[in-house]
Amino acid sequence: MTSQTKAADAPGTRDRVVRAASLLMQRQGYAGTGIKQIAQEARATLGSVYHFFPGGKQELAVAAIQHGDREFAEALSEALGAHDDPAEALTALCRTLADGLSASDWADGCPVTTTALGTAGRAPDIQAAAAEAFARWRELVEQKLRASGIGAHDARDLAHTVISTLEGAELAAQVSRSERPLTAAAHHLGRLLSLYR
Amino acid sequence: MTSQTKAADAPGTRDRVVRAASLLMQRQGYAGTGIKQIAQEARATLGSVYHFFPGGKQELAVAAIQHGDREFAEALSEALGAHDDPAEALTALCRTLADGLSASDWADGCPVTTTALGTAGRAPDIQAAAAEAFARWRELVEQKLRASGIGAHDARDLAHTVISTLEGAELAAQVSRSERPLTAAAHHLGRLLSLYR
Repeated sequence: MTSQTKAADAPGTRDRVVRAASLLMQRQGYAGTGIKQIAQEARATLGSVYHFFPGGKQELAVAAIQHGDREFAEALSEALGAHDDPAEALTALCRTLADGLSASDWADGCPVTTTALGTAGRAPDIQAAAAEAFARWRELVEQKLRASGIGAHDARDLAHTVISTLEGAELAAQVSRSERPLTAAAHHLGRLLSLYR
Repeated sequence: MTSQTKAADAPGTRDRVVRAASLLMQRQGYAGTGIKQIAQEARATLGSVYHFFPGGKQELAVAAIQHGDREFAEALSEALGAHDDPAEALTALCRTLADGLSASDWADGCPVTTTALGTAGRAPDIQAAAAEAFARWRELVEQKLRASGIGAHDARDLAHTVISTLEGAELAAQVSRSERPLTAAAHHLGRLLSLYR
């Protein structure tokens, strides 16, 4: 076993590489992020990065999006699980998103969006991973809305708008360096949901 | 006058360069777009690009965002002007956005967002231009909501959510290659606004 494969097999290396890719692509876009920089940020050798991701940057981008997908799904599940009322859950989630953005000086938004947008129409794997992320988030919202008494058709439709609005408000907050879009989104999603229960 | 400055002074060159920068940065992100490619796409010499944009790519990105800002402000104004009811105007606008996305095979979304997100926290000029765009769009919505009888405070707050939701739905539509997020957004924004009139 060479020292290179040892490094590649060490527990946590793959994880560190994916986290670094996710963070860097979110801040710099897909094209602005090189594999060398990812390796450096993850304290991994270039060899170990290619060991885990023989498909190179495109494969890494898919893994980065899947990581962002899981992270947001966890935050969403946690908020939805902690509150019986979906409107209260969304308010708590918007608070968490606003705190995270503000703590990173408005630099760390949604890793799925930035990576996917910078490759629109040119990387079907990346697009598919981003589409799956959005679908998973909608599914979590839809289940919660149904559990709160909203009918199946309305719940599915509303889940689209809840995710679009959260995503757009996070983006507007980041661009405007202000939490106001997220505060407004929480308030208005609550009003909207009240029409269906 | 050299042939280079002649080309630079020809009417329309600056415009073509800005349009090319806007299109390419929207599709490939800021980092993924080079000045040479912009010049090529705009059928301009590299010299004429630097003649108009001595600040290089960052200055071009600001101009590209301002171009995207104006384009969306025009589409928004047109929709808001064509319908007395703001909800109907937003439905028409979502229809236009869905048609545009679908006609470009889901490749051409919001040029402001992609350019701004890929440079988050590292390019204050670009961030400021994107923040101005969002503020202008909100202002147009706010005026329309006030004209339709919604109070000043509510109109300002709702304008945040209308723009966030449109932006998020366009992005979700692009990522999911489906117009459903835009159809849902139009419907739900209409329901939301009906609570305030």
